[in-house]
Amino acid sequence: MPKILIIHGPNLNLLGTRERSVYGDISMDAIDSEAVKHGAGCGYDIETFQSNSEGAIIDAIHKAPAHYAGVVINPGAYTHTSIAIRDAIAAVDIPFVEVHLSNVHSREDFRRVSVTAPVCAGQISGFGPASYILGIEALRSIFES
Amino acid sequence: MPKILIIHGPNLNLLGTRERSVYGDISMDAIDSEAVKHGAGCGYDIETFQSNSEGAIIDAIHKAPAHYAGVVINPGAYTHTSIAIRDAIAAVDIPFVEVHLSNVHSREDFRRVSVTAPVCAGQISGFGPASYILGIEALRSIFES
Amino acid sequence: MPKILIIHGPNLNLLGTRERSVYGDISMDAIDSEAVKHGAGCGYDIETFQSNSEGAIIDAIHKAPAHYAGVVINPGAYTHTSIAIRDAIAAVDIPFVEVHLSNVHSREDFRRVSVTAPVCAGQISGFGPASYILGIEALRSIFES
Amino acid sequence: MPKILIIHGPNLNLLGTRERSVYGDISMDAIDSEAVKHGAGCGYDIETFQSNSEGAIIDAIHKAPAHYAGVVINPGAYTHTSIAIRDAIAAVDIPFVEVHLSNVHSREDFRRVSVTAPVCAGQISGFGPASYILGIEALRSIFES
Amino acid sequence: MPKILIIHGPNLNLLGTRERSVYGDISMDAIDSEAVKHGAGCGYDIETFQSNSEGAIIDAIHKAPAHYAGVVINPGAYTHTSIAIRDAIAAVDIPFVEVHLSNVHSREDFRRVSVTAPVCAGQISGFGPASYILGIEALRSIFES
Amino acid sequence: MPKILIIHGPNLNLLGTRERSVYGDISMDAIDSEAVKHGAGCGYDIETFQSNSEGAIIDAIHKAPAHYAGVVINPGAYTHTSIAIRDAIAAVDIPFVEVHLSNVHSREDFRRVSVTAPVCAGQISGFGPASYILGIEALRSIFES
Amino acid sequence: MPKILIIHGPNLNLLGTRERSVYGDISMDAIDSEAVKHGAGCGYDIETFQSNSEGAIIDAIHKAPAHYAGVVINPGAYTHTSIAIRDAIAAVDIPFVEVHLSNVHSREDFRRVSVTAPVCAGQISGFGPASYILGIEALRSIFES
Amino acid sequence: MPKILIIHGPNLNLLGTRERSVYGDISMDAIDSEAVKHGAGCGYDIETFQSNSEGAIIDAIHKAPAHYAGVVINPGAYTHTSIAIRDAIAAVDIPFVEVHLSNVHSREDFRRVSVTAPVCAGQISGFGPASYILGIEALRSIFES
Amino acid sequence: MPKILIIHGPNLNLLGTRERSVYGDISMDAIDSEAVKHGAGCGYDIETFQSNSEGAIIDAIHKAPAHYAGVVINPGAYTHTSIAIRDAIAAVDIPFVEVHLSNVHSREDFRRVSVTAPVCAGQISGFGPASYILGIEALRSIFES
Amino acid sequence: MPKILIIHGPNLNLLGTRERSVYGDISMDAIDSEAVKHGAGCGYDIETFQSNSEGAIIDAIHKAPAHYAGVVINPGAYTHTSIAIRDAIAAVDIPFVEVHLSNVHSREDFRRVSVTAPVCAGQISGFGPASYILGIEALRSIFES
Amino acid sequence: MPKILIIHGPNLNLLGTRERSVYGDISMDAIDSEAVKHGAGCGYDIETFQSNSEGAIIDAIHKAPAHYAGVVINPGAYTHTSIAIRDAIAAVDIPFVEVHLSNVHSREDFRRVSVTAPVCAGQISGFGPASYILGIEALRSIFES
Amino acid sequence: MPKILIIHGPNLNLLGTRERSVYGDISMDAIDSEAVKHGAGCGYDIETFQSNSEGAIIDAIHKAPAHYAGVVINPGAYTHTSIAIRDAIAAVDIPFVEVHLSNVHSREDFRRVSVTAPVCAGQISGFGPASYILGIEALRSIFES
Repeated sequence: MPKILIIHGPNLNLLGTRERSVYGDISMDAIDSEAVKHGAGCGYDIETFQSNSEGAIIDAIHKAPAHYAGVVINPGAYTHTSIAIRDAIAAVDIPFVEVHLSNVHSREDFRRVSVTAPVCAGQISGFGPASYILGIEALRSIFES
Repeated sequence: MPKILIIHGPNLNLLGTRERSVYGDISMDAIDSEAVKHGAGCGYDIETFQSNSEGAIIDAIHKAPAHYAGVVINPGAYTHTSIAIRDAIAAVDIPFVEVHLSNVHSREDFRRVSVTAPVCAGQISGFGPASYILGIEALRSIFES
Repeated sequence: MPKILIIHGPNLNLLGTRERSVYGDISMDAIDSEAVKHGAGCGYDIETFQSNSEGAIIDAIHKAPAHYAGVVINPGAYTHTSIAIRDAIAAVDIPFVEVHLSNVHSREDFRRVSVTAPVCAGQISGFGPASYILGIEALRSIFES
Repeated sequence: MPKILIIHGPNLNLLGTRERSVYGDISMDAIDSEAVKHGAGCGYDIETFQSNSEGAIIDAIHKAPAHYAGVVINPGAYTHTSIAIRDAIAAVDIPFVEVHLSNVHSREDFRRVSVTAPVCAGQISGFGPASYILGIEALRSIFES
Repeated sequence: MPKILIIHGPNLNLLGTRERSVYGDISMDAIDSEAVKHGAGCGYDIETFQSNSEGAIIDAIHKAPAHYAGVVINPGAYTHTSIAIRDAIAAVDIPFVEVHLSNVHSREDFRRVSVTAPVCAGQISGFGPASYILGIEALRSIFES
Repeated sequence: MPKILIIHGPNLNLLGTRERSVYGDISMDAIDSEAVKHGAGCGYDIETFQSNSEGAIIDAIHKAPAHYAGVVINPGAYTHTSIAIRDAIAAVDIPFVEVHLSNVHSREDFRRVSVTAPVCAGQISGFGPASYILGIEALRSIFES
Repeated sequence: MPKILIIHGPNLNLLGTRERSVYGDISMDAIDSEAVKHGAGCGYDIETFQSNSEGAIIDAIHKAPAHYAGVVINPGAYTHTSIAIRDAIAAVDIPFVEVHLSNVHSREDFRRVSVTAPVCAGQISGFGPASYILGIEALRSIFES
Repeated sequence: MPKILIIHGPNLNLLGTRERSVYGDISMDAIDSEAVKHGAGCGYDIETFQSNSEGAIIDAIHKAPAHYAGVVINPGAYTHTSIAIRDAIAAVDIPFVEVHLSNVHSREDFRRVSVTAPVCAGQISGFGPASYILGIEALRSIFES
Repeated sequence: MPKILIIHGPNLNLLGTRERSVYGDISMDAIDSEAVKHGAGCGYDIETFQSNSEGAIIDAIHKAPAHYAGVVINPGAYTHTSIAIRDAIAAVDIPFVEVHLSNVHSREDFRRVSVTAPVCAGQISGFGPASYILGIEALRSIFES
Repeated sequence: MPKILIIHGPNLNLLGTRERSVYGDISMDAIDSEAVKHGAGCGYDIETFQSNSEGAIIDAIHKAPAHYAGVVINPGAYTHTSIAIRDAIAAVDIPFVEVHLSNVHSREDFRRVSVTAPVCAGQISGFGPASYILGIEALRSIFES
Repeated sequence: MPKILIIHGPNLNLLGTRERSVYGDISMDAIDSEAVKHGAGCGYDIETFQSNSEGAIIDAIHKAPAHYAGVVINPGAYTHTSIAIRDAIAAVDIPFVEVHLSNVHSREDFRRVSVTAPVCAGQISGFGPASYILGIEALRSIFES
Repeated sequence: MPKILIIHGPNLNLLGTRERSVYGDISMDAIDSEAVKHGAGCGYDIETFQSNSEGAIIDAIHKAPAHYAGVVINPGAYTHTSIAIRDAIAAVDIPFVEVHLSNVHSREDFRRVSVTAPVCAGQISGFGPASYILGIEALRSIFES
């Protein structure tokens, strides 16, 4: 069974407690369960990883190709600042799909530009926890194309 | 059976003949068939509309709430320039999902900012024809939430 | 009896239903009736036109000098993007007064710059439906000066 | 009889002698007489004030609510630079209408942005002395709405 | 006899009546006659089209390859704003030459950048009606090279 | 007993009546009393001054070294525009501490840059009336270091 | 006894050895002792934390609400770049006060904008080690208001 | 004997005590004496005026044509911000020469742009007190040409 | 027989050897022969000049009116930087036509702005060696108009 | 007798024939004669140099200290672009005074910034040929101070 | 034998596998061996360190002066974003030489500005693995000067 | 024995006399001797060239491939402005290495961007005369790779 890694960036571990009007009430664990279940339904083994550290996320990206067929990544705030994560994604050969819970286009200006999206296959933003499910579906469309 | 409208903006009628290295080989009609079939599988009646005219697209948006539960829109080049389409979307009460075939984040700078995305529920870009299917799925997640 | 044309730009046909907190509850037809009545009181015959199409608005501007002594125009979202409408106004010899329902200066940054105002006689913004009445009065002051 | 204050900003005391090709031949006193007469016709008692000093204008704004129902203000050059006048207008509870003799949109770039307009009810520019009359009419439409 | 299409953008139908100090006294019809005559002398059949509508111009571009060997286009004000026309030109396989009556480099700043020129073979600006004749000659040099 | 001057800039005389959601309910006089009491407790004689006039504030700064050991200044809106006040502060030899009631960093962009802070010892913003008390404490730390 | 956490960002562990002309001679430990002593005098238990790692600082912020009533944070260089730390502060419910040893307003341009200050209660900069003491006092004023 | 007015802007009254490394040791009174003496030698009666208030400087400019043949003005910090002083100079018919003690081109960026110089005959900067003498000579060359 | 001068700017002497994918295989001498032949066919005597030195090109422009009726100039890289060449063209009374081999609008951003075009009659770019022939034709249309 | 060099930059050799509405009718030779005469009256031996070549002007600057006590330079268009001339002036130890015939502050934006002025003693602009005479006087004030 | 530390920033551990068209085929270990050998030949003991974590790199910089005479650093993507690493380098007293494998000046715009280079002795970029050898030579020239 | 050319740009002939705090005490001749000696040691014949003229430097670049295997160039101030030198380097087929004496990254902003570096193999800056020696070594590594 092919494996997919979900990477959650900084502060996503607080989901469900943090700024609920923006991010909603669901916790990161609940999102992960949902994703694992959806993945299983599609024949994928989903694993998940969260870190607040840019370096740890880069390490995880480096190791991903040895274990996973693709990655769904929500780089959180690093989306807008981390050329290092961008370079890490560009350096490995499996497809990445960038996802965001909120519609980044309708928030502060500094959240409208993604440093990492240009090296991902594509970007999905604004659908709450469903963004992750759509991200898995997007990977599936890439695997099958 | 609830209905969903797909709106294709300018130049998308040329799909399959236009800049294939960017947009792929599939025609707009083939994408529409695919979408109708996928919609039927989910219990949605999909209808489609294409125009090269900004005014005609605004007219279509105005009329949409009377007939559709939601809209998947690929505003094409108007994504980056049309405040009028943005205002039209903001003026009607059904959810819009913005989709793009190519990853707009990895192209020219002027394609990175979307004028219309802030008033849509969210944006999906980069997955070729699958972006439309994911757009329908995104609407479904909104209807069901 | 001299004639004045009122041109409503994109999305103004939705007035009374669209974003009421910004634009108020009154419909475009009600504004037009009010304007016709006010015009009649001043000795002007008021006619009105609305289109969501930039090209159709330009056509209307081209034809205006043959029939009208002046134009009150609310270019809607085209205010901020249409050099073509600007050129059309500059190309004809009757006075134009630009009006806006809302105070464009207190909204999003992209609504603060008007591409069309520099070629109009002046601009009036922020007084709701009264902006149109003031626009007619402004034309009157031009005719009489 | 309700009272309205007209505030003239810097250099407007020179009207009729200053750059006539831009501002016309009429003096500030003539504008004031015209406004008083027009006000009387509408049932308003118009008083006027001019100062070249930013501080004195702020003082006048602070005192206005105790005596006037609304203010027509032409902040002159302070329109484009004075956050302090903006804050003063925002701090008092009666409506302000910003007026300009010339069409500020068709002049130097630095005259296109108004720092004060966002906290006024609206702005009227380009109609010469008639801008003041229209400003009184605009206040009337606010009082009556 | 190979055919060439001349596309005139918005407001060019007013030539000869519009801002003569900038655009000269000659009408669009006179330019077209001149071009047809010049084309005939070179062995080309010239046809012409004008529209104020961005959508109609895009439609015309889409249909051009079926009938014409090349296009001389004066996109008027859309030169500076229309990514949609740019995409249309990029989507079809025949050569386009962009022409302008006035020297766009010596006018307002917003007329100095052409959105459409990068996807044309080249640009000719500043020679009045002769710009169109030079445009036909430029197409000829492309056909013959 | 060493003396400290508190300078309040434009519109601060309206405190307690002006935009209470931003600035709170306390009046300038109450802040001054509080400061005088706090100063007395620390062995400082506090005097206060308010003006809406840039020139009067500059005059006060010029005279300050003859009477005071240091100044706590809230330049209000002049914070963001007055190079003249900046030059006045730079021209005198006693320490200045800049204070703001609201957190200027979380308001409009034009309030984020302070023209005057670079020539003060430091800046304190966001603590309501306590900002003034902290300003006195900051001066004390400077006197004692 | 309520507890307050002091967070020192990157390079602050070198205080007393690093660029003394900018930051002074006092070490981080000396600042901490001073703060603990001052806190004790006010009835607060002060604890301190330093890290050069953005991720570790985010972790510390996440854990703070469980143990502390408020935080005094000097984010060092991350002040100007870390949206992730900003999001972490915004995600927790206790007050943060941002402090800086040097007057950031009088240094390089890139140090004048704080990414983190908009989500803190306020900012204090320029008073050397006393900035921390003032930060504790600022928290106290918040607790007591 | 024709009269010339010297206007000194804000903070120039502190000359000789203020930032001597930038502005030198000479006082404003000494500069004025020097100028009066030099003027007398050339047959001009020199009078001088200083104010820290923008409004008072505008008043002085308005009154100048009734008494003086020309003005040498050092607008100090208002050079860079005051559109109102610029408008005042543009509104009167006698020549103005702008002078600066220091070389404004070699100081902070915000001192490199003069808002007032475009409406003066010319600008002289960098020669210390001699800038005023050269300003008188410049006026003389204008009177004699 | 009237004379026309062709001025080639820096690096054009390397044509045929330099970056052939951009500039093509033809040498400068071949272009010149072609131009001379074409000129002769139209009754013009064509002379040519090349220099890598900005100063030498300015000297040539100064001398041109004494010998030539018009100039076709390809300023090469100086197009984008030389205000001095611009001033030289503006200083002489014969018409200049600016030509470029490549389509400057589709290359690096810094090649999109021409400093010299605003003072030429017009600009022709993108047609390879034919740009020079079109430049001669453009001069002819000017001479004959 | 101390010697002063006047350096004229590009296009100044055309004075009297070039754009007279901007630069006036007087020739460079006439300016030089005037300057030599004025210099002689003050006890200075004036020599002059003109070149259109940036390199030749740099060479002249390098050699100046061996022969002259100071330089009056009008760098013409190189004022706005030549870092190389700026570096040359900074590299030699005698004072330079920058002069301009026209008021560069009231012309095109690109003429408002001087690259060379920051390394000169000061700048004089706007007084026609008198700018050179004032430049000599400025050097004199430097020599005598 | 004096010691030199080589610090490799994020993603450099992937060298030889990552984007080979940009970075080449050689691994980080091979570069390190090469450097150690070259160092030994010059009498230096070379040690190396790699981390993907900004914080860990800062820690390494802090500890360097206790063990090394100088550092060759390739900060990778942190070159362009990390003020914290910049501050760390500025805080320690041994010389740093910044090196890059690729020519950062010929890549994306965001790679052209180095935040860290201003506090290093100098920068070497574009020579592949040889950049490190040249970095060691550069340190040698500093030690010997 | 292969030959290498060293090109020194404007003002470098003054080395040793010019701004010594920035550029050091060593003369250009001393640098050249050093380079020739170092080259001889490596088996290269080094020749050198200096000019203050942009055109002369372009000429030298054009001729270089006929005589030299590579070039070490310090374009001086032309580094930041000369697209013409950039085009010349791009037009010839031998490798160029750009060198600078000072660390251009730590100087004025306008010295941070190199127009010429993108078309060189790489850039070395900040090591004084050693930059040239390292440049020769860099060329050697290119020849040998």
